Amino acid sequence: MQFFGSKEQLFAAVMEIPPSALEQFSTAFEGADDQLGERVVRVFLDAWDGAPGVSEPLMAMLRSAMANDIAREQLRDFIQSRLLEGARSAGDAEAALRAGLASAMLVGVIMNRRIIGVPVIAAADSDEVVEALAPAIQAVLAPRPAEGEAGDDHGRA
Amino acid sequence: MQFFGSKEQLFAAVMEIPPSALEQFSTAFEGADDQLGERVVRVFLDAWDGAPGVSEPLMAMLRSAMANDIAREQLRDFIQSRLLEGARSAGDAEAALRAGLASAMLVGVIMNRRIIGVPVIAAADSDEVVEALAPAIQAVLAPRPAEGEAGDDHGRA
Repeated sequence: MQFFGSKEQLFAAVMEIPPSALEQFSTAFEGADDQLGERVVRVFLDAWDGAPGVSEPLMAMLRSAMANDIAREQLRDFIQSRLLEGARSAGDAEAALRAGLASAMLVGVIMNRRIIGVPVIAAADSDEVVEALAPAIQAVLAPRPAEGEAGDDHGRA
Repeated sequence: MQFFGSKEQLFAAVMEIPPSALEQFSTAFEGADDQLGERVVRVFLDAWDGAPGVSEPLMAMLRSAMANDIAREQLRDFIQSRLLEGARSAGDAEAALRAGLASAMLVGVIMNRRIIGVPVIAAADSDEVVEALAPAIQAVLAPRPAEGEAGDDHGRA
């Protein structure tokens, strides 16, 4: 693909993140079924922990953002525009925050596993990590209405 | 306190992290009741997002670990030793991984909120963040046995 329809596509291309990886991230977040958490965690781990063609550009992006103000601003704009785009398609303002928190949590795990390299976290195998994280990501992305509430509370002030 | 019983206490003192903050983190993780997730999220946000006497040393620690190999190794050893100590008192090997994943997720949120500064995440107020994250951290720290299982699966190979 030679055209970049948006600043974020250009950023991803400069960072050499394969468009297929971005596509996979977006697709994983679609739907609100019971497997949403597991699907998102698996796509994240596969991308960041998996084949070097995808994981190396992502790690490079994260390391640059840690080291360098301009890279950090670009990453900030990139994440923000993806969150807003996802929320627009979900038609729900709270969805952007929840997707952002889920991504932030997963990047935190990757950072501890791959960059800081905390042994307890780095040594766990992928399936063990997916098993532990899937219900958590499910709870952030597709919260159950609080007990005792008749409906949801999206309309609150 | 002038004595440092362990390398990690020394590290915390060098980083100027108040002993009371470390104590609060440890206490928050104790118990496995229904409020565990909310308590841990609140202690994290209060410490990292709150009074400068606590939040500034923590942010400095994170920024150093991003910029510098030696600081990163010290942080790695610090996190690892705290996780192992916590797991020893819980008497459960899986507990160290779960506590590590919960901390990693929360640090990921702080990083996106305070360092990368993604607007959607930075603009949310603390209560909104606690509400979204508490069930997730609860699910990681105090998982429910999978449906259809008679008991828990701690004894699996």
